[in-house]
Amino acid sequence: MLLIRPATIQDAPLIYRMIRELAAFERESHLCVIEESDLVRDGFGDDPKFSALIAEWGGLPAGYAVFFDCYSTWVGPELYLEDLYVRPDFRKKGIGMALLSEVARIGLQHCRAMRWEVLDWNQDAIVLYKALGAEFREQWKSVALGRDAMRRLAERNL
Amino acid sequence: MLLIRPATIQDAPLIYRMIRELAAFERESHLCVIEESDLVRDGFGDDPKFSALIAEWGGLPAGYAVFFDCYSTWVGPELYLEDLYVRPDFRKKGIGMALLSEVARIGLQHCRAMRWEVLDWNQDAIVLYKALGAEFREQWKSVALGRDAMRRLAERNL
Repeated sequence: MLLIRPATIQDAPLIYRMIRELAAFERESHLCVIEESDLVRDGFGDDPKFSALIAEWGGLPAGYAVFFDCYSTWVGPELYLEDLYVRPDFRKKGIGMALLSEVARIGLQHCRAMRWEVLDWNQDAIVLYKALGAEFREQWKSVALGRDAMRRLAERNL
Repeated sequence: MLLIRPATIQDAPLIYRMIRELAAFERESHLCVIEESDLVRDGFGDDPKFSALIAEWGGLPAGYAVFFDCYSTWVGPELYLEDLYVRPDFRKKGIGMALLSEVARIGLQHCRAMRWEVLDWNQDAIVLYKALGAEFREQWKSVALGRDAMRRLAERNL
């Protein structure tokens, strides 16, 4: 019933749709400005910047995961899980766990740990991650700097 | 007086020492298990997993930054700032800002945003980041899964 498979370039429109669904679920649609062509170029070109898995349930697209390599100066090579999403009609079937499990299998080939972020109100996800033995790094705050602010910062020392 | 330069393989012992200093400052020495040989292989081999900058003040090593490419499914290519560190004797001279500025210049070549994490008690850093116009993503929690837990997760669906 459940199939987890690597995404191909043909999946870019599907991944794009599910990214938009995830952004809506996370109440961040206004921040989601990526285009399908970005995903084609960045995920499936000569130098892929991310990997993706697709979950299918009874042949229907049910969810996805996006991840890439990152690096911890405490630990060494790590895997960063950027997105994990299961469509509403397909929840409570273990699909999120199956996606996570496959990401872990891939990560174990060359990574010493995994990291990701979760919204503090997403209780279903938090319960799942705690059951896995994940550590919640409560003292760490997530910070972002947009391109305009980067440009101002880059010009500081000229 | 101040020089910001890319790190070379000869800097690996220095970077290792400063990583240990940063881990002590962040009260995470017990989590810092990386070895100098990891940094040599992962930063300066055929397929570098991170980039590093060294700050020198009057010819003395004063700080460093470690960063790498990451990816946002909302925005596209981003730069992840893993470490930013200025040694205690060299603080309040603008060295952290100069390192950040150079990281931003590098990032602007191919990234649409930067992201990083900060400890919630590190007020000096928080004040600096707010002055740059950084966004503090208060609802997001940082999560990590170690290698043993990854192994248990990977074995779930076998």
